[in-house]
Amino acid sequence: MKIEVIKFGGSSVADANKIKHVANIIKEKANNNVKVVVVVSAMGGSTDKLIALANEVSQEPNPRELDVLLSTGEIVTSTLLSMQLNTISIQSISLTGIQAGIRTDDAYGRARISEINTGRIIKELKNKDVVVIAGFQGFSDEQDVTTLGRGGSDTTAVALAVALKADTCEIYTDVSGVYTADPRLCNKARPLTQIGYEEMLEMATTGAKVIHSRAVEVAAINHMPLIVKNTFELLQKGTIIQSESNMENINKVRGIAHQNQVGKITIKGVPDKPGIASSVFQPLAEANIPVDTIVQNSSTENLTDLTFTVANEDLKKAIKVSEKTVKTIGAADLNSTNEVGSVSIIGTGMTSSPGYAARMFQTLFTKKVNIEIISTSEIRITCVVHKDSVKTAINALHDAFELDVE
Amino acid sequence: MKIEVIKFGGSSVADANKIKHVANIIKEKANNNVKVVVVVSAMGGSTDKLIALANEVSQEPNPRELDVLLSTGEIVTSTLLSMQLNTISIQSISLTGIQAGIRTDDAYGRARISEINTGRIIKELKNKDVVVIAGFQGFSDEQDVTTLGRGGSDTTAVALAVALKADTCEIYTDVSGVYTADPRLCNKARPLTQIGYEEMLEMATTGAKVIHSRAVEVAAINHMPLIVKNTFELLQKGTIIQSESNMENINKVRGIAHQNQVGKITIKGVPDKPGIASSVFQPLAEANIPVDTIVQNSSTENLTDLTFTVANEDLKKAIKVSEKTVKTIGAADLNSTNEVGSVSIIGTGMTSSPGYAARMFQTLFTKKVNIEIISTSEIRITCVVHKDSVKTAINALHDAFELDVE
Repeated sequence: MKIEVIKFGGSSVADANKIKHVANIIKEKANNNVKVVVVVSAMGGSTDKLIALANEVSQEPNPRELDVLLSTGEIVTSTLLSMQLNTISIQSISLTGIQAGIRTDDAYGRARISEINTGRIIKELKNKDVVVIAGFQGFSDEQDVTTLGRGGSDTTAVALAVALKADTCEIYTDVSGVYTADPRLCNKARPLTQIGYEEMLEMATTGAKVIHSRAVEVAAINHMPLIVKNTFELLQKGTIIQSESNMENINKVRGIAHQNQVGKITIKGVPDKPGIASSVFQPLAEANIPVDTIVQNSSTENLTDLTFTVANEDLKKAIKVSEKTVKTIGAADLNSTNEVGSVSIIGTGMTSSPGYAARMFQTLFTKKVNIEIISTSEIRITCVVHKDSVKTAINALHDAFELDVE
Repeated sequence: MKIEVIKFGGSSVADANKIKHVANIIKEKANNNVKVVVVVSAMGGSTDKLIALANEVSQEPNPRELDVLLSTGEIVTSTLLSMQLNTISIQSISLTGIQAGIRTDDAYGRARISEINTGRIIKELKNKDVVVIAGFQGFSDEQDVTTLGRGGSDTTAVALAVALKADTCEIYTDVSGVYTADPRLCNKARPLTQIGYEEMLEMATTGAKVIHSRAVEVAAINHMPLIVKNTFELLQKGTIIQSESNMENINKVRGIAHQNQVGKITIKGVPDKPGIASSVFQPLAEANIPVDTIVQNSSTENLTDLTFTVANEDLKKAIKVSEKTVKTIGAADLNSTNEVGSVSIIGTGMTSSPGYAARMFQTLFTKKVNIEIISTSEIRITCVVHKDSVKTAINALHDAFELDVE
């Protein structure tokens, strides 16, 4: 039994007509020799509506309850798509995360998949053409519903592709692949034919929304090729994300990622002694807040300033946690802003050729974009800049690194 | 541990403010000595929205998928109410039908509860004040979601009250109890202080929407007193539904029930031989369509006409089933209408005093209301009339039987 795993994002299933269109795509794939496992997101906008409802009753909704609430969005889509498939004579059944055997830890809102028991899925595929699975959700040891965080349906799809030993995992979305930069902000941006996992990971964590970073991690660890395609432009080839084999692509900027708005926190007057960084970041880790860039300014009089960025939606929570830390460690003060964004250039082996960094800084300087923080990794250079400069920076860098040419 | 079971209908939890109001009612009840199990319906209107979505993708949605879809409505309410309870410092957890251990058969859309495993509920009540349970749903042997039919949350509540050995089951709704007639159609209607199970059952099956008839059946079998109260008029006493002990109430019309619109099917030219009624009604039973009144006209030339009514929403399905039957049994023809409604007078021991029927027919005759079908039970007399005459009939009968006087 050959199994294909394909995933449709929220904009691909946003209304009844789009669900019908998606059902036709699935119909093309399902036949005697191929069974299809489909993972769906909530209908575009519906998760936001559920969150708004939760916030109407509670400013900080109980996390367990919030997960159960949000999980209903994907369940709605999965049943509607399954109904439509049955209507067009494709034998289909929908399964919730629990029914699909997707076990997770109990970190509500950011749960991680620990194991997939594929028994029920395999059983259903014996007499059905298609199993439609509600993405984004799983269940804890207590049999409670958990969710994997925004964009978690991508992770559901990749984890299922691995568990079901599929050859590839196709991610259908509303853009034609992974672009060299966000086409809404940079009109010279073009889709890449191929990109490596590590590069994609840097693209995803620093803003390219096309696929969730955790999904790329799971794919990379398990060598699962991902194909990103456009639900509404089926003739476009899309982008394949896999282990980079093309030597030509090494030592080259592949794309520009950005975040329009991030939260930035500076803790001032931190006593500069060993273990102090851990005192600051351990509480954030315990509160499940991922920290992006971290910069520690050089110390004067044994005091130092620590600056870091977090996702904009985590800023409120991060401030709350860090205010406690300021007292615990005897720091002077804390200030924060969400008036900044980030721009990153990404490409394998960049940091080994210092010319890239220099060209990036020079380009931003020419465009009068002030750099607030710099952070680098093996394959990425990120500059935090004022949020109003993000678009200018993207376009200038796209030109400077000649990304419009394949 | 004393456990109270209370249920809130869709209009009681229709928006965030109403959910907050409901949370305050629960807070008044929960204390060190009393644990509260709350059953909730979907937020008013949301089930209709989900059905509309399903109909957008499919005219006859797959029943299993439809049940999973509809079950999300009650899950949404249960999580929101639980969040709000936690916000006002009442320790609460929500449970879905599956988590609450509500086992049913697998008749999707009209499942019946077979057993409640209260283990999880009892466990949660040990360290929580309140458990909020999504009504209307359970699970089959296949671990698939089932729903109990419209109004099924009442049944969930009563079954839980029985399983948890509660003293009573309180049903909160948007009216102040069980009325002598529908107050929207009859302005002299008043709430009854008390009514027997059998009378309530007749009221419920013939149109009084205040409580679902199956819930009354389960309460009657288990001698569980039901209290119907108004969520928004807490000072009103409401109506208690229990085994009738008050001799004064026997041989008296207690109330008038009605259905604004029902489906009526007549099968003409049915060969009049033994077993023919079963040939007509067995297929309807197998299709899970409850039949209300049945009338068989006197036979001429060994042919007879069979007329019966069904709920308006079942008419389409009933016609489809019966058209097959017409061919199978060699009947002549079938015709149908949904231009009729029904009016019933209800009271214990009425049929033993023929004066009630005579007075009912006389009253309708005086008001020029033409009677199409008559059907009687031990405690009910029902007349099917043109739907435009329903309101006139209710008011005339309310006066004739002096229901405005306690």
